Amino acid sequence: MNPTGRNFSEDRFFDPDPAIRSVAGDLYHEAAGTPIVSPHGHVDPRLFSDPNATFGSPADLFIIPDHYVFRMLYSQGVALESLGVPRRDGTPVEQDHRKIWQIFADHFHLFRGTPSGAWLTHELHEVFDCQKPLNSATAQEIYDQIEARLAEPEFKPRRLFERFNIEVLCTTDPATDTLEHHQTIRQSGWNGRIVPTFRPDGVVNFDAPAWRKNIDKLSEVSKIEVVDYKSFIRALEQRRAFFKSMGATATDHAALTPATAELTPVEAEVTFQCALKGDWSCSDAARFTAHMLMEMARMSLEDGLVMQLHPGSFRNHNDVIFQKFGLDKGADIPIQTEYTRSLLPLLNKYGNDPRLTLILFTLDETSYSRELAPLAGHYPSLKLGPPWWFFDSLSGMARYFDQVMETAGLYNTAGFNDDTRAFCSIPARHDVWRRASANWLAGLVARHIIDMSDARAMMQDLTADLAKRAYRLD
Amino acid sequence: MNPTGRNFSEDRFFDPDPAIRSVAGDLYHEAAGTPIVSPHGHVDPRLFSDPNATFGSPADLFIIPDHYVFRMLYSQGVALESLGVPRRDGTPVEQDHRKIWQIFADHFHLFRGTPSGAWLTHELHEVFDCQKPLNSATAQEIYDQIEARLAEPEFKPRRLFERFNIEVLCTTDPATDTLEHHQTIRQSGWNGRIVPTFRPDGVVNFDAPAWRKNIDKLSEVSKIEVVDYKSFIRALEQRRAFFKSMGATATDHAALTPATAELTPVEAEVTFQCALKGDWSCSDAARFTAHMLMEMARMSLEDGLVMQLHPGSFRNHNDVIFQKFGLDKGADIPIQTEYTRSLLPLLNKYGNDPRLTLILFTLDETSYSRELAPLAGHYPSLKLGPPWWFFDSLSGMARYFDQVMETAGLYNTAGFNDDTRAFCSIPARHDVWRRASANWLAGLVARHIIDMSDARAMMQDLTADLAKRAYRLD
Amino acid sequence: MNPTGRNFSEDRFFDPDPAIRSVAGDLYHEAAGTPIVSPHGHVDPRLFSDPNATFGSPADLFIIPDHYVFRMLYSQGVALESLGVPRRDGTPVEQDHRKIWQIFADHFHLFRGTPSGAWLTHELHEVFDCQKPLNSATAQEIYDQIEARLAEPEFKPRRLFERFNIEVLCTTDPATDTLEHHQTIRQSGWNGRIVPTFRPDGVVNFDAPAWRKNIDKLSEVSKIEVVDYKSFIRALEQRRAFFKSMGATATDHAALTPATAELTPVEAEVTFQCALKGDWSCSDAARFTAHMLMEMARMSLEDGLVMQLHPGSFRNHNDVIFQKFGLDKGADIPIQTEYTRSLLPLLNKYGNDPRLTLILFTLDETSYSRELAPLAGHYPSLKLGPPWWFFDSLSGMARYFDQVMETAGLYNTAGFNDDTRAFCSIPARHDVWRRASANWLAGLVARHIIDMSDARAMMQDLTADLAKRAYRLD
Repeated sequence: MNPTGRNFSEDRFFDPDPAIRSVAGDLYHEAAGTPIVSPHGHVDPRLFSDPNATFGSPADLFIIPDHYVFRMLYSQGVALESLGVPRRDGTPVEQDHRKIWQIFADHFHLFRGTPSGAWLTHELHEVFDCQKPLNSATAQEIYDQIEARLAEPEFKPRRLFERFNIEVLCTTDPATDTLEHHQTIRQSGWNGRIVPTFRPDGVVNFDAPAWRKNIDKLSEVSKIEVVDYKSFIRALEQRRAFFKSMGATATDHAALTPATAELTPVEAEVTFQCALKGDWSCSDAARFTAHMLMEMARMSLEDGLVMQLHPGSFRNHNDVIFQKFGLDKGADIPIQTEYTRSLLPLLNKYGNDPRLTLILFTLDETSYSRELAPLAGHYPSLKLGPPWWFFDSLSGMARYFDQVMETAGLYNTAGFNDDTRAFCSIPARHDVWRRASANWLAGLVARHIIDMSDARAMMQDLTADLAKRAYRLD
Repeated sequence: MNPTGRNFSEDRFFDPDPAIRSVAGDLYHEAAGTPIVSPHGHVDPRLFSDPNATFGSPADLFIIPDHYVFRMLYSQGVALESLGVPRRDGTPVEQDHRKIWQIFADHFHLFRGTPSGAWLTHELHEVFDCQKPLNSATAQEIYDQIEARLAEPEFKPRRLFERFNIEVLCTTDPATDTLEHHQTIRQSGWNGRIVPTFRPDGVVNFDAPAWRKNIDKLSEVSKIEVVDYKSFIRALEQRRAFFKSMGATATDHAALTPATAELTPVEAEVTFQCALKGDWSCSDAARFTAHMLMEMARMSLEDGLVMQLHPGSFRNHNDVIFQKFGLDKGADIPIQTEYTRSLLPLLNKYGNDPRLTLILFTLDETSYSRELAPLAGHYPSLKLGPPWWFFDSLSGMARYFDQVMETAGLYNTAGFNDDTRAFCSIPARHDVWRRASANWLAGLVARHIIDMSDARAMMQDLTADLAKRAYRLD
Repeated sequence: MNPTGRNFSEDRFFDPDPAIRSVAGDLYHEAAGTPIVSPHGHVDPRLFSDPNATFGSPADLFIIPDHYVFRMLYSQGVALESLGVPRRDGTPVEQDHRKIWQIFADHFHLFRGTPSGAWLTHELHEVFDCQKPLNSATAQEIYDQIEARLAEPEFKPRRLFERFNIEVLCTTDPATDTLEHHQTIRQSGWNGRIVPTFRPDGVVNFDAPAWRKNIDKLSEVSKIEVVDYKSFIRALEQRRAFFKSMGATATDHAALTPATAELTPVEAEVTFQCALKGDWSCSDAARFTAHMLMEMARMSLEDGLVMQLHPGSFRNHNDVIFQKFGLDKGADIPIQTEYTRSLLPLLNKYGNDPRLTLILFTLDETSYSRELAPLAGHYPSLKLGPPWWFFDSLSGMARYFDQVMETAGLYNTAGFNDDTRAFCSIPARHDVWRRASANWLAGLVARHIIDMSDARAMMQDLTADLAKRAYRLD
């Protein structure tokens, strides 16, 4: 910790009321040594399979792959090309990473009061030990510092994994992935625990990009030729078993809506055959996705993999950007999301079975108090995931605690996950969560809603234990 | 009050800021002696009609009938059978109330930070004078204490009614109820004021369980044979008059949505006849409910009964639980609810008439600032009820004050009601409301938005006067 | 400032926590001298075109034209006739302005804790120097005071404009307006900057009252006979050019929903011809409005006028009041509003073009964090307007800062506008915004999320600079 850092107080993010701040600080510091449990995220396992892997330049690390960062600059008129974001058609983009860094620094004020601003500040201070604030004047000097650090052996990914005190890191991997990098990590003798997560979106959603190719790949990796719905299901079961053998404890599912509904066996077969033949008029992607969510719950009952559902993002809203730059360019926009009726078929069939754990996420905060907390406060198989994406922020967490906990109760929630592809931001993100948790609990203590022994137990749960239990990582 | 109690400070629930806490305490203590006005709830009048009625065992009192309590345990994998919740098919369930109590105590940490936790703690401390915290170790000792208390004459329901300082308690009763227990109470010479509320859901909603039987019962109790829509309406009017003669000042209506729309006389007749004949294909329950809400408003204009509308709960979401255990088992889940367009027909016909008071409730907090406050801030006949069900909680109340009051103004709201069947929780629930109210007002005083004389007047209104005026109980 | 006034502390609206209050006070006072920028509102330009214009009586100034005020009294059973609100049919209403004032004062407690209460208190204290609180007893004395003030030359509108330190005031004017009052102001030699805003709702929405007459007026003022869609578009372009020549920098658009969708040229022509002929069966007002929003964006690209969109108000909900009293009588009620899909066509066509600035408003606060902040945090052409109408309030602003800023970032918002027709409330409204802004920033400083140099820069932006830049007024 760096108590002299600008905007980087030991007390940061705590309520200024002395009664709350002091309790929050105590709770936070008691939990400070607890290793990080990261049960859901998008870090590339390649960083750890090759013992000599590096993060590239400061721009490679902080800007070019991070849609949280470049979407904010784009919103203020900065062209993505000037930030080095690659074009799909190969049109050259800015290659001078110092220029990219300078643009970023020139616009760093855009991140005032944002979670990206908090994470970036934490990374610069804590991971790279940069004492000066980032701005136009300091840009190149800070670039030099980071570049020098990144060349040091202590800044190799495996070393940082250890320094970050990560107990377990879960990646997210397509159903068709061979998990070769996970294999290499396991065989390397290095004892960092990195496990895959089974994500079948590319094969269960007909409208996924390259769905047909993905099916061929599924046949190939599963060694089960997918020629009909039955072989499709067998191939998925094979992949789940393989992921489980590689340490996976969970699956992950994205969908535009959380609709669930079972097709009859004949409907499932006909719909799947239509899609296989490319006859989109009868393939009905939405209904098939709704059906497959139920199938996935059924498989989870049987193989014990925890099921995660991340609905409600309208992907690639900006078609101009999608055509030029592809997926994940900061143009995914939430939509209103309904859970009570949507999940009815799945919950009526499987929701009372304690073998199933279904962790729900939302991008529609109105569902917290109205639908998700009441559902999680009733069904044994349901847990609520932490605030997601835009809401993985101080205010987002405060609203989550405020709107979820009274009805769901703490023990129907699943702790924190960082959901990030930015490996070096993991400590920052967990730090924000731990501080927000400590601050919430301290507010309850200060108002005599809970006492300190409750608060200590709840802090331990929020820091790591809820996540470990929910994701069956203990 | 018990200032030494763990988690039971005199200052509980107040903001820790000294300026707010001190004003909140002053406002709270000035209102502390005001009798409780309970204008809406579900306490069984039998408790008071028989002077020797008791509450049964501690498990009968705190666990077995309380879906707020057992749904939280069920969500964590505790079988309802093990909590003594009776099965519809008569399959035996746990009969040992000490075992049930032990399970409850073993899981009491699940209620940390929840409103149920706050109410239960209040009841144990204040009503039963239990000084120790409830947990696995203290469970049987506390059971003994409560059991002993319940055997004392001061713990008979009528004595507690007096000790709780309840000025008036409104029950909720089916339209077909003979109100015999209310009769007995009135004739008993005891002067506790307990009045019925007219709730016709079972006869106006075709999809109510046992609707056809309820119609027969309606014929029987009204002595008007219900053979068509006209006789149905006459029978309802007869029942309303009877309820009014028994002291009722209000009606209460549940519906999946707040849709209102008038059928033509012919449509009403045809739809009702279809239902009477059991021809569900043409009976259109939703449209008939929407129509009957308008009829009920018309009758309220005429007979002066205040109309309450509680929409937006998707009842019995968990069919497995419904089949095994029946209604009200913690599986009612809110849905998105629209008021602006839904209430348009009713408000255009009756909303300007000051003879009507329509009190609206919601399980969709998004409607507070968007629809309900603007509607209540305009129509003379509308008032907003307090935060309901999942939102009858400290944070729920804070959001209500925050999102409703600026637009609706305090005087278009209807004070508090506890809406509970758990009689012994009534003081706890009103105490939470009074503390939350005092804290809200103190925050306004501390920010110089109102002064102390405003705050004192508003506190008096929130404590009892708004409810008395809105429900015409004064 | 009047530090002795009841409820009128120098520290009003600031958090009582000393750390926050002190920083908020510093930030507020540093910004206190900044002139008011009022980029959107409904003040009548006639007040300034005639150097001898007056505000009429105290009732004319505070009550009769202000639907924020009389709707609250109406909701509590006060007849609009008794408040002097004119009837459409000419039925006489109360003419005695002292009686109207007395009713208002008798009910002034209804405004406790409301934004109207805060504005009215500010106006009485600061603009009219009334030291006593308004109530039944002081009503006539305060009437006397205000009446005397209004007779003084310093209370002429132009003098108050100067005293209020207004840098620029934008009015809102129909597309068919000749802007004669703006002409007179410009030619008068007085150097107050008052500019028009182009509002074409009356000619682009077929369902606008008197649409057909408005089209005739459009032909007349544009000198382009509107006989088909093409001439309609030319006439609109002519009007925009005229408004721009008169100093306008923006347009403003109301619609029930923010739906956008382009018609083919043939569809546009056919639909418009249907409407011209009064054939409403084929005129499809909703689709034409959606199409015209896209046309307006296209014109904004070309002529540089900033586009504002104010959707989501269900106008004239109370038909009884509408028939008797007409538009804008406090009976406009918000509805659920969807932006992500609704704006897709417009944003895909024009959202990446930095020549367009589209400022979005909402009456559905759920869209802040779910849709509007993510959209504004991505599209270069989008900015979010400040909290609007019911949400132009202390709590409304706090929710806006809380729910918008982390995702959108401050720099994708458009500062404040008062949106008022009540000229004398402008300083009060900007004061509330400035205090709410200072308080929000102070909270970030106290939690070490930003430092004081960030806060000072952000305060300057919130006070005036964001509005000036977004509306191209600098």
